[in-house]
Amino acid sequence: MSSGGTYKKRGKQTLSFTTTPYIASSYTVVGSKENEGPLQGSFHHVLQDNIWGESSWEKTEAKMMAFAVEEAIKLASWSQVEVDFFLAGDLLNQNITADYTARKVGIPFFGLFGACSTMAEGLILASILIDGAFAHRVVAAASSHHETAERQFRFPTELGVQRPMSAQWTVTGAGAVALASPEGICNQETHSDSSRQVRITHATIGKVIDLGVRDAADMGSAMAPAVTHTILRHLQDLNRRAEDYDLIVSGDLGLVGHKMSQQLLREEGVDLGPKYSDCGIMIFDPKKQDTHAGGSGCGCSATVVLGPLLKMMKEGLYDRILFVGSGALFSPTSFQQGESIPGIGHAVVLEA
Amino acid sequence: MSSGGTYKKRGKQTLSFTTTPYIASSYTVVGSKENEGPLQGSFHHVLQDNIWGESSWEKTEAKMMAFAVEEAIKLASWSQVEVDFFLAGDLLNQNITADYTARKVGIPFFGLFGACSTMAEGLILASILIDGAFAHRVVAAASSHHETAERQFRFPTELGVQRPMSAQWTVTGAGAVALASPEGICNQETHSDSSRQVRITHATIGKVIDLGVRDAADMGSAMAPAVTHTILRHLQDLNRRAEDYDLIVSGDLGLVGHKMSQQLLREEGVDLGPKYSDCGIMIFDPKKQDTHAGGSGCGCSATVVLGPLLKMMKEGLYDRILFVGSGALFSPTSFQQGESIPGIGHAVVLEA
Repeated sequence: MSSGGTYKKRGKQTLSFTTTPYIASSYTVVGSKENEGPLQGSFHHVLQDNIWGESSWEKTEAKMMAFAVEEAIKLASWSQVEVDFFLAGDLLNQNITADYTARKVGIPFFGLFGACSTMAEGLILASILIDGAFAHRVVAAASSHHETAERQFRFPTELGVQRPMSAQWTVTGAGAVALASPEGICNQETHSDSSRQVRITHATIGKVIDLGVRDAADMGSAMAPAVTHTILRHLQDLNRRAEDYDLIVSGDLGLVGHKMSQQLLREEGVDLGPKYSDCGIMIFDPKKQDTHAGGSGCGCSATVVLGPLLKMMKEGLYDRILFVGSGALFSPTSFQQGESIPGIGHAVVLEA
Repeated sequence: MSSGGTYKKRGKQTLSFTTTPYIASSYTVVGSKENEGPLQGSFHHVLQDNIWGESSWEKTEAKMMAFAVEEAIKLASWSQVEVDFFLAGDLLNQNITADYTARKVGIPFFGLFGACSTMAEGLILASILIDGAFAHRVVAAASSHHETAERQFRFPTELGVQRPMSAQWTVTGAGAVALASPEGICNQETHSDSSRQVRITHATIGKVIDLGVRDAADMGSAMAPAVTHTILRHLQDLNRRAEDYDLIVSGDLGLVGHKMSQQLLREEGVDLGPKYSDCGIMIFDPKKQDTHAGGSGCGCSATVVLGPLLKMMKEGLYDRILFVGSGALFSPTSFQQGESIPGIGHAVVLEA
């Protein structure tokens, strides 16, 4: 009876999009270290240094996100005033990177916080806005910066506390994606990109799950149960199997968390095998780059999914990817107060 | 053509809901000081003290939000597993109040950050989920706590810096609202509440606006331009006038910011007169309660709107309210780095 159309929820946590929002464009900005790993050459813009001419790392991060948003809008052949809504978040206290980017671009704004799952959360809510006929053009973005995260989470960094091998390296990176309804994508005549179009077809919204990990230097293990739960729920809700995907990629579980997630999945009778990867593992070479368990931060999955993975989909290497953004939901205050670290995983299906 | 139904955006920033999500229930928890002001007796639960038996103020705030959410769900005659999605945010770094509440209630979760505009942002996104046919039952919540905010924003509080008269007093309060589609509201037979039902009919999503205020003790002035812009845009987008509303209430501009907003509106030829109020002004008696310019914090508008104002609507005092949640989007880090304070205002139309 809903005048909003057919009911779109499937099973317990999954949404099925009927107008399947299109990815009109994406843009990624990374630091030089991020472009020296296995994904070299597949990002849109690489910084020469981590300060990019600004007077603080925080200003640099806001400049990175704003640049990614502006370039994504240009690539979609839109102007900023044509974008209905902007959704964004980051790791910094009070989301200042996203706030200052929203101030700069002047698009009606929804601020999000999902820790490192923010890009997945933004993709989902942007798809909801388009699929529910609330918008034709939406931009979502997320970012992190190694030095702003160090300042905030590990201050004073001069202490030089040794990082255990389970620790991850916060990625310096920002990703933005322009999503459109079939009407919104328009300007197709000016759209010279002849490669395949990618759409968002489903999303599974995660629950916050906490199995009691208290080690802030092992966030992969803190997030693994939530990501595992979301993957299992997604497959159940849609009655799908691993075979239905060419790639299943978690956000930033890293080497330790990803191994744990594989084991938890096997205990539930699901063996994803080599098609299960992780953006945090893909972005760095831990032996050559001293990044220990891999990359992390909102910018990790944002740049890996919106840069190299989307490129591979457009080129025909993958037809259908399940991206499960992962977030560790803690603060230095909660950690100091002895709280454990809850995790979340939001899943998005991308189809070419 | 959208299979999502008729396009729901009106003008530049406004959404018109066709299934008009219903408020199935709401629940508010406040500290004792908040119940000693002009709104005494109109909140659902009043704390005896600000610690509520917990070992830290942060744990108390999470307990407050979780209690509000659980009680709202009970009042709606739902069980927690029947709720499709939970949306929440707060003022604390990395949204820990909302994160820990989501962990406790176990409902698929979207984390939001809109500073003190979070309750309005949650109401809007919850309405979108229902109106777009993605959910039948959604709960949204927001909170703040005087002591957690002091610890975070004004540490070390022992310094005892004198508060100027433009400063506001962070409200200790949590509000939760259960929104439902016509199908979701069901259990109507068990719903003994015979008073009028309130629906969400429209929303105007704000832009981030910054006129350069750099005084963290005058956040009302920082937010006033954004709130003013959203009110003007709302009236234009729907071709409405002030006369179409019984009450227009900003979130927490306080005495200084609200006066500035009235002036900015008059400069644009709009005189809202006495029907323009502010939750931050309504909640405290500044002369008797030493609260200077009024209340602030996510819990301010969350408790005033979801407690006393909703009660007055159900009792027939108001038919149509425009609530404009206001947020100051800054962090101690951005403030120390000399950044100015951007503001945002999100508007929601409530109709009985």
